[in-house]
Amino acid sequence: MRLHPSVAAVRVAVRRDLEDLDPGAVVVVACSGGADSLALLAATVHEARAGGWKVVGATVDHGLQDGSDAQAERVVAQMAALGADETLTARVQVGADAGIGPEAAARRARYAVLEQVADHVGAAAVLLGHTRDDQAETVLLGLARGSGGRSLAGMRRRFDRYRRPLLDVSRDDTVTACQVEGIEVWDDPHNLDPGFARVRVRRSVLPVLEDQLGPGIAATLARTADQLRADTDLLDDLAEATYADLVTAEGALPVEALEGVPDALRRRVLRLVAVAAGAPPAELFHEHVLALDSLLTRWRGQKWVDLPGHLRGVRRDGLLEVTRAT
Amino acid sequence: MRLHPSVAAVRVAVRRDLEDLDPGAVVVVACSGGADSLALLAATVHEARAGGWKVVGATVDHGLQDGSDAQAERVVAQMAALGADETLTARVQVGADAGIGPEAAARRARYAVLEQVADHVGAAAVLLGHTRDDQAETVLLGLARGSGGRSLAGMRRRFDRYRRPLLDVSRDDTVTACQVEGIEVWDDPHNLDPGFARVRVRRSVLPVLEDQLGPGIAATLARTADQLRADTDLLDDLAEATYADLVTAEGALPVEALEGVPDALRRRVLRLVAVAAGAPPAELFHEHVLALDSLLTRWRGQKWVDLPGHLRGVRRDGLLEVTRAT
Repeated sequence: MRLHPSVAAVRVAVRRDLEDLDPGAVVVVACSGGADSLALLAATVHEARAGGWKVVGATVDHGLQDGSDAQAERVVAQMAALGADETLTARVQVGADAGIGPEAAARRARYAVLEQVADHVGAAAVLLGHTRDDQAETVLLGLARGSGGRSLAGMRRRFDRYRRPLLDVSRDDTVTACQVEGIEVWDDPHNLDPGFARVRVRRSVLPVLEDQLGPGIAATLARTADQLRADTDLLDDLAEATYADLVTAEGALPVEALEGVPDALRRRVLRLVAVAAGAPPAELFHEHVLALDSLLTRWRGQKWVDLPGHLRGVRRDGLLEVTRAT
Repeated sequence: MRLHPSVAAVRVAVRRDLEDLDPGAVVVVACSGGADSLALLAATVHEARAGGWKVVGATVDHGLQDGSDAQAERVVAQMAALGADETLTARVQVGADAGIGPEAAARRARYAVLEQVADHVGAAAVLLGHTRDDQAETVLLGLARGSGGRSLAGMRRRFDRYRRPLLDVSRDDTVTACQVEGIEVWDDPHNLDPGFARVRVRRSVLPVLEDQLGPGIAATLARTADQLRADTDLLDDLAEATYADLVTAEGALPVEALEGVPDALRRRVLRLVAVAAGAPPAELFHEHVLALDSLLTRWRGQKWVDLPGHLRGVRRDGLLEVTRAT
């Protein structure tokens, strides 16, 4: 019997992404019970035979919905049935984190507990089931937020021990792979709740883009994310190096040196100065950076520019600095 | 009587953008007869009094529609009535240009004739009426094309003598400014033809984005374009410098040196190598560049990779080069 193309797509993606792992390596698959993560788990179990890895299926119980413990038990049983060497449920307590929304708080709690799991089992890699469609949605959400290349760069393929092997695989392929393999998937009710911007992007925005601008827009967005990720990583590195090179012991920057720095780098350096002085990164918008930049590009003796965190950007004695507002 | 905010928005944008012009400078305003370019012309005439500039209103007759000459005459009369110091109609012949579409051919012909007009009147600046909404549409069209930051960087604020003073002004403000000032505007029937991708973006995509992701999306897209423009300009400059630094007399690149170059730069350098060897830029996709890159990042003795223009990328004797396919 020939392998179904969707099953093959998921397996090939996993094989390619994990080819650097040694035999005996422990791989954690974070599994919600949705089609994406179950297809990921099944493919990882399959590829582990040739790779000689040990597969740990981990599901996170946020305790946010009634019956979430029963759902976690169901996922654990599924993962075991699919052949995971070990399965476990990680319970998290999502607190009312100051300053971040409920989605961000849940995400932070999820990564904290996955980190514990990974340490506990000595994982070489933790796999996340995000697909190309998730990536496209992330890009569009970033586009609406609008803070330049970084916000369009989507999710990273890898960070620390984490990997996202399915970023080039469509969500449809994960759904089909599960159907073909007889895996029963759970549909998160959150995925239908238009209260979430991501759900609106998935159900309303992307279909219109596909319809009006041609099919394949999800793949295009994901590809753009990859390119912008590489671009912004490099520019951020260059900015850090430039900042380190220019900054005085008092945390100020010489105006003359800054004026020779290209726009894209100079504005990043100015952002670093403001953050180093204590400006909250989440409140520091591009407008603030441009205001700071106007002390260089439109200098006409301005007294100061206001910055978040009760800070001020000032230019004096040939130096640009960010200080407390008095 | 207080100045209407929309009129003020257009005037302030023009004033800021032209503040570097000397008295006596000749400013050409390219005017289609639409709200954006008529509002631009009216504001430029107003600001020219303080600036001491001479304003030339130029309209281009593409001869593509029946009655386009009557339309051009109407615009010339309007520009004169609005106080332009000089007005003229530039007639273009849009030929069947090989290899570019009708929109691109019309654009190319338009710039060619504007260039002649600018030379003829000795223009210091040629103003184009593109608004923030045009910029947002350009970004979304680029997103659908998907070739990284460059395709999202939208239209330049300035190039050569050309300037786009209204890139921060909404289309609505130009329409309102014309209404308030009693200027009768012409609605280009092309703007209603869903055969154009830009029209679909304007009428279907942007309204859905506004509706689903919140108002202000056009401004956000335009801001993103500015940031990406600066980013990609710098990265392209760095890539050109790296290429010039590394390339051998035979047009090859030493593998060892390339391997130390960060992803974002290395891929741009590889693109330059392929273009220098004769690859047609419009056919050279990111996939081709990645294929070339695989000779470095996934080297396992591949014979060659195919590139457009009957070219091949090969790696031999420690060099990467692009040669004719034999």
